[in-house]
Amino acid sequence: MKKAIILLSGGLDSTTVMAIAASQDYELYALTIIYGQRHVYEIKAAEKVARYFEAKDHIISQINLRAFGGSALTADLTVPKDQDLKTMAAQIPVTYVPARNTIFLSFALAWAETLPAADIFIGVNALDYSGYPDCRPEFIESFENMANLSTKIATETGQKITIHAPLINLSKADIIRIGIELRVDYSLTHSCYDPSEDGAPCGHCDACLLRRNGFKKAQFEDPLHYPD
Amino acid sequence: MKKAIILLSGGLDSTTVMAIAASQDYELYALTIIYGQRHVYEIKAAEKVARYFEAKDHIISQINLRAFGGSALTADLTVPKDQDLKTMAAQIPVTYVPARNTIFLSFALAWAETLPAADIFIGVNALDYSGYPDCRPEFIESFENMANLSTKIATETGQKITIHAPLINLSKADIIRIGIELRVDYSLTHSCYDPSEDGAPCGHCDACLLRRNGFKKAQFEDPLHYPD
Repeated sequence: MKKAIILLSGGLDSTTVMAIAASQDYELYALTIIYGQRHVYEIKAAEKVARYFEAKDHIISQINLRAFGGSALTADLTVPKDQDLKTMAAQIPVTYVPARNTIFLSFALAWAETLPAADIFIGVNALDYSGYPDCRPEFIESFENMANLSTKIATETGQKITIHAPLINLSKADIIRIGIELRVDYSLTHSCYDPSEDGAPCGHCDACLLRRNGFKKAQFEDPLHYPD
Repeated sequence: MKKAIILLSGGLDSTTVMAIAASQDYELYALTIIYGQRHVYEIKAAEKVARYFEAKDHIISQINLRAFGGSALTADLTVPKDQDLKTMAAQIPVTYVPARNTIFLSFALAWAETLPAADIFIGVNALDYSGYPDCRPEFIESFENMANLSTKIATETGQKITIHAPLINLSKADIIRIGIELRVDYSLTHSCYDPSEDGAPCGHCDACLLRRNGFKKAQFEDPLHYPD
């Protein structure tokens, strides 16, 4: 059975990616990074999702991106609420975390070497925030090239490492449609950047707005409960 | 004053890189990663070196590469002793840590974005271990390309990030000669993979052998004391 490492935050996107990798008959190795995010509640969702998909292993690794700051998710900046979706898409938001996807993929690469596994899955999406640099296809391609020069497995055995980003060009509604088809239980997932202490979503941050709008467009009901 | 981030382990190579960056009039920002290495003693050396060069800031960041294992530095494997230097150079050693330089550079990239800084220095060397994949010029070049696609600073301002690897093609003796010329105090540094509890070098691991041989060839006395 082929092994795949899936970067799993516990959000809607990465959970759908778990379902896609499972549907392609990969043995699933989930990797979740606690990086100092304010919405650390998502880790609980990641644990539920990994169990739901019967991941062979689930590593939860702790790092501290608060040391570098620069993001509303890792510093004392305000998480924007009720932004217009078009404005949101046109800029790099304050919730962008510097080099986060590069760091996450680098950790996945370390695990890929030792498992070994040749396939890494990540739920990046180029449409939600068109300005997000590390969610674009050219970034993923460039990381893959670098990965194939940086690792023992690639240089010694010629085994190519592939970075799969199956959601990269999909709308949130399409992602949800695919997930529903693959029987994803979205009640296990967590998307909010600014949840209450018990994990309830705020309903108004960018992540909540994109999610709610996606469910609406896909014509499914979001199993999460929002305030208002 | 230009800002530079220097990946500083506290070893001979990264300390020489600090001196090189200082000589090029950069303001120094040292970044040290505790990754689960058995020779965590090197962190003390990094602190001394950062102070010696009056680094503007020194971030010591903790991650756990033991979760992935696969190296004599992060798992319960034996550190090889008294290896022939030529044999050492011809293969990827068990002290190779999967994806370590990729992860270290990714953290430096996060800091480069938030400082901001356009210059990252790393003390990789392609000669000590010619088989080490993430010490080769093509890896560094590939990482730099990826970095310039992955970051907000590069995509928004057009400010290019440069990865400097000034030691990449130098012999250990040349590195030491340059360091001595730049008045590096090598008594502050630490190279051993398998030190005693008080930090004394073993004298026989690959890192000790390469260092001792380098000082011998450069015709300087190593200020560290070895057992033998």
